[in-house]
Amino acid sequence: MKLSELDTPALILDRGRLEANVARMSARARTLGVDLRPHMKTAKSAEVGRLATAGHSGGITVSTLKEAEYFAEHGFTDMIYGVGISLDKLARVARLQARGARVAVITDSLEVARGIGARAAELGARFEVLIELDTGDGRAGLGPDSEVLIEIGQALDGAADVDLRGVLTHAGQSYACVEVADIEAVAETERAGAVAGAERLRAAGLPCPVVSVGSTPTALHARNLEGVTEMRPGVYLFNDVFQAEIHSCAMADIAVSVLATVTGHHRARGEIVIDAGGLALSKDRSTQAGPRDVGYGLVVDAGGARLPELHVARVSQEHGVVTAPSGEPPFDALAPGARVRVLPNHACFTAAAYEGYHVVAGAPGADDEVEAEWPRVNGW
Amino acid sequence: MKLSELDTPALILDRGRLEANVARMSARARTLGVDLRPHMKTAKSAEVGRLATAGHSGGITVSTLKEAEYFAEHGFTDMIYGVGISLDKLARVARLQARGARVAVITDSLEVARGIGARAAELGARFEVLIELDTGDGRAGLGPDSEVLIEIGQALDGAADVDLRGVLTHAGQSYACVEVADIEAVAETERAGAVAGAERLRAAGLPCPVVSVGSTPTALHARNLEGVTEMRPGVYLFNDVFQAEIHSCAMADIAVSVLATVTGHHRARGEIVIDAGGLALSKDRSTQAGPRDVGYGLVVDAGGARLPELHVARVSQEHGVVTAPSGEPPFDALAPGARVRVLPNHACFTAAAYEGYHVVAGAPGADDEVEAEWPRVNGW
Repeated sequence: MKLSELDTPALILDRGRLEANVARMSARARTLGVDLRPHMKTAKSAEVGRLATAGHSGGITVSTLKEAEYFAEHGFTDMIYGVGISLDKLARVARLQARGARVAVITDSLEVARGIGARAAELGARFEVLIELDTGDGRAGLGPDSEVLIEIGQALDGAADVDLRGVLTHAGQSYACVEVADIEAVAETERAGAVAGAERLRAAGLPCPVVSVGSTPTALHARNLEGVTEMRPGVYLFNDVFQAEIHSCAMADIAVSVLATVTGHHRARGEIVIDAGGLALSKDRSTQAGPRDVGYGLVVDAGGARLPELHVARVSQEHGVVTAPSGEPPFDALAPGARVRVLPNHACFTAAAYEGYHVVAGAPGADDEVEAEWPRVNGW
Repeated sequence: MKLSELDTPALILDRGRLEANVARMSARARTLGVDLRPHMKTAKSAEVGRLATAGHSGGITVSTLKEAEYFAEHGFTDMIYGVGISLDKLARVARLQARGARVAVITDSLEVARGIGARAAELGARFEVLIELDTGDGRAGLGPDSEVLIEIGQALDGAADVDLRGVLTHAGQSYACVEVADIEAVAETERAGAVAGAERLRAAGLPCPVVSVGSTPTALHARNLEGVTEMRPGVYLFNDVFQAEIHSCAMADIAVSVLATVTGHHRARGEIVIDAGGLALSKDRSTQAGPRDVGYGLVVDAGGARLPELHVARVSQEHGVVTAPSGEPPFDALAPGARVRVLPNHACFTAAAYEGYHVVAGAPGADDEVEAEWPRVNGW
């Protein structure tokens, strides 16, 4: 089947761009001297996971236990579930481990840390745990200098069936940076904080083999990762308009897009309606606060070439309203029935609306053959 | 299985509330003297569709062709696909009709209208078409007084294998109303515009048996629907915080919620972290512009009872940060591992992240038995 024959809206993955993104981050990890444990929250695809881990240890990061189960079924055996664990989820982790997958969990709670040991005994399981540190993101995690850090370390290390594996942090504040120099500074804060937390645990006689950091911007712009053992970027695999705005990639590196069809014209308002709305594009508005607000996505032609400043200005559930903020959209080129592609604001959210990817080589301007259909794992 | 035993995040449907919402809109349709053709874009569930159509003609509205295919498989034979058709989608419509389902399509484009007749002949099919009118929403549709309306009507009526069925409109501007009187006025604009368009077609000697209007706010507040034949509300089935804010329901009428688990506390910031983030809740921010901004959802306890002003202030992909804007959240009541439910800003978007509903009776405060799992149809 050709790209032009797909029903719309449809999620397209340009293989050439994906492979270039993989190669770039892979080289970064080697240059920085750390392992690459790519975060599968964006791609949620075993095929992408295999490309992303090639040449590294094979470890991945997952954002849900359903992802962990899916990747275990597809042969991945070394995972960190990168969202704070709750005790009720440990039975599911234990079942995964019984099937041969190592799934380390994370926490920043002394109460949870104490409970993990008790649950391990009840379940006849053994859990690997990392302590989550906050290095400026302000979402989850303990400060590297927190008193509770050592208490949590002792609670975990003291439990018979728990292995304290180390510390983990995510400097999500890198997403708010405007200049590369700011991202470099955040990367150093992330590195230094993670290493400081690890050193405090070690000084207290506790083990800390793993020092895990990661976000796409800091992975790309860190000057060094001394003392760090691994990094966990994820969105770099696909990139998106927001990542392009914050210096993670060029627009030409965005590997996922939504193929859509023009359904109507409203010439008096300067608007073209397409069949990709808020569900097909997501309601993520990451570019809103940035230097260039592209609404719900940047519109390019079906072959992937730029159109002048077109973006999706408004959405309802199944309608996208395309405008050219500084002029009239090209009504004649985009007659009803014409196809466009929408580059997402935030690839993780846009991709989550689809069961899988239509994979094309990604030759610019070509009506590519769809080479493969790669499934995704959604939900929890 | 009990509610408390579900893995989180999970989508919960309170059957009692759903049934009350169904009964209320059903009575409205009877009072107004029109057929009820509920929009399945919110529920996307055959079980909900059967409840919603009971006592009416059995017709439904769908927002995607995948919905149409799903509902056809589940015995629904009278549908309007309520998003402007593109000619490439007509082959799929023809396949549905060959299997015995009537699926009327809509357009506001003269170019598309002309193409439908040609496609019908090519496909050996017969299509039913309604002309989409714009009665103030400014998304899609022709003005009722548009010159093109009659041209489209003639193009459709003149085609051998096309039945012009009537006009359809959606007064989505009702969502921006603050006062009930404003919604009443929008409902009258919607009614009058639809009827005016229908009368113009009839005056031109064209058939127009169907005059279809609908949004939940206008369906609930219209003073009369003279000249209208059917209405197509959808979100009333579940309701949400935004609908409560615009006078469509009370908070106690919200039938869907997301069950979530507390994963951590950040006392210094007054924040509780839960395992329902932007994917589990959606990034819809409908309440942002309204009288009360509840962030990404209003937090209630696991039994559905209100907690003081708690809402999800921030989200990342799998994290929700719960705050109490005017005070401290109840850390002790919501210890790590505790369950809460999040009432969605916009039910259509939140539900779309899930494969189905865990259905409970919805007795307030009870740890309900999960009575059933009702699947949803997502995607395109």
